Amino acid sequence: MKSKISWIGAGNVGWHLAPALDNAGFPVGEVYSRNRSHAEALSQRLYGAKIVGNLDFAESQSDIFILTVSDDAIPEVTRELVLPENALLLHTSGSVPISTLEYAAIEDFGALYPLQTFSKARKVRVDDVPFMIEGSTDKAEMMAFKLASAISKSVQVASSETRSQYHLAAVFACNFTNYLMSKAESWVEEKGLDFDVLHPLIVETIQKSLQNGPSASQTGPARRGDINTIAKHLEMLNEKPEMAALYRLLSDKIREDFGQNM
Amino acid sequence: MKSKISWIGAGNVGWHLAPALDNAGFPVGEVYSRNRSHAEALSQRLYGAKIVGNLDFAESQSDIFILTVSDDAIPEVTRELVLPENALLLHTSGSVPISTLEYAAIEDFGALYPLQTFSKARKVRVDDVPFMIEGSTDKAEMMAFKLASAISKSVQVASSETRSQYHLAAVFACNFTNYLMSKAESWVEEKGLDFDVLHPLIVETIQKSLQNGPSASQTGPARRGDINTIAKHLEMLNEKPEMAALYRLLSDKIREDFGQNM
Repeated sequence: MKSKISWIGAGNVGWHLAPALDNAGFPVGEVYSRNRSHAEALSQRLYGAKIVGNLDFAESQSDIFILTVSDDAIPEVTRELVLPENALLLHTSGSVPISTLEYAAIEDFGALYPLQTFSKARKVRVDDVPFMIEGSTDKAEMMAFKLASAISKSVQVASSETRSQYHLAAVFACNFTNYLMSKAESWVEEKGLDFDVLHPLIVETIQKSLQNGPSASQTGPARRGDINTIAKHLEMLNEKPEMAALYRLLSDKIREDFGQNM
Repeated sequence: MKSKISWIGAGNVGWHLAPALDNAGFPVGEVYSRNRSHAEALSQRLYGAKIVGNLDFAESQSDIFILTVSDDAIPEVTRELVLPENALLLHTSGSVPISTLEYAAIEDFGALYPLQTFSKARKVRVDDVPFMIEGSTDKAEMMAFKLASAISKSVQVASSETRSQYHLAAVFACNFTNYLMSKAESWVEEKGLDFDVLHPLIVETIQKSLQNGPSASQTGPARRGDINTIAKHLEMLNEKPEMAALYRLLSDKIREDFGQNM
C-alpha cells in the first residue's frame, strides 16, 4: 500500500516540501490551512490534493500527516487534530521538541526538519537541503528517514536538542544577518543611493567567512578599534535611534570579543 | 615621467592594492609601516620597493603617496608626513572625509576607496572591486581616477558624504553580519556540533536576499511572531547573557519593523 500524505499548514515550508514529496512517490491527498486561499494555492502545486476544512481526519485515507504550521501553532493544532489509527504525525520545526506531538494521542510521531530558509517566491533545490529527522519509535524514525531520503541526499538523525541548537544558530547566522542587510538597504535607499553597489562586498564577506571561518574573517571599525569612525557613525545615526542601538551593541560586543576594549 | 608610489601602512588593504598598482604600471618604490615587519612582508609582494623608517618624504622620488593606515590613524599620520612639492596624497578610507588630508599642507589630495573587505589570507579579484574616488582638485580627481581605473573596471566619483553613507551601510551588511555568523559558529561548536551543516542555509539566505531584497526575504521566529520559540531561545541563551542581549534586541526590532508587536 502506498503511503498517502495529508498536509496541514500551507506556508513557505509546505510550499516547497509538499510538491517535492508529491513528486517523489508520496502523494499528497489532502491540504488543510486555516487560511483557505493558502490551501487552494498549495493544492494547485499538487496532483490530486483536495482541500479539507477542518482537522478531523478520522475518515482520512492518509497514513502520514505533516504539520507545516508556525512553531507556536503546533501545540494547539496538535490538540485539535483527530487522526486515524496508526497514523504517523511529523512536524518540520527546528525548535519544537517532538514530545509536543504527544497531544495527538498516537504512538508514531517525529520531525522532518529542513535546515533551510524557504520563501514562496524563490525556488530551492530541495535535494541539497540538509534534513534532520527524529522519531518517537523505530517505525516513526524509519518513515521520517524514508520521506526525507526520497527528496534530499543529505539526511541525518538528530535529537530535538540537537535540532534546537542548530535552529538557534541559524537564527543568528541567517535571520539576523538578513535583517541587518535590510537595515543597510533601507539606509542607503533613504540617501538616494544604490544597494546593488554593496553586492560584491556582501558576497565576498560571506565567501570569506565560509572559507576561513567568521571569527578569523572579522574586519571593520569595531574589530580595528577605530573609535573615531565608530563615533562618527553613531552621529550619522542620530536620526535613527533604533539603528544606533544596534550599532552600539554590536560594536561593543565585537570590541569585547576581539580585545579592542578602550 | 612615470608616476611612482610611496605606500604608507601595510595592513589588509595595502596587502592587496599595492601589488595591484605595482603590476598595473604604477611602481611602488617605498613602503612605510609603524610595524617594520609588516612593511617587510608587504615589500616582498612588490618588485622594487625599499622600506623607509620615517614619514619624512622630502627627498622621495615618488609623486603619489597612498595611506592605508587605520581610519583613526589618518589625521595623526597626515600631520607627521613631510611630502615633496606637487605630491598627490590619497587615503583609502570609506569614512574619513578627504578634508582630513589638508593637514599635509599640499594642494592635491583625495580618496581611493575600495568598497570591499580584505584579509591577507584571501585573494580578492581587485578588478571586480567597486572603487569610489574623490579629489581636492581636478588634477587630484583625475589621478585618483587613473589609478583606480588601472586596477578595476568599476570606478565612480563619490563625495566624502556618499562614501561615508556606503561605508556605514557596509558595516551593517558585512562587519555585523559576519560577527553574527561568528556567534552562531561558536555556539554550535561549543555544543560539539558542526558549523558546516549551516553553510547551505547561509548561502541560500544571502542569495535570496540579493535576488529579492533583504526586506522581502526576512523569515524566522521574530518575523513570524513565534513568541514561544523566542522565549525558548532566550532560555537556551541563559548561560550567554551577551548573546541573549543581541537576540532580544534584534528580535524586538524585527517584530517592530514587520508589525509583529505583541
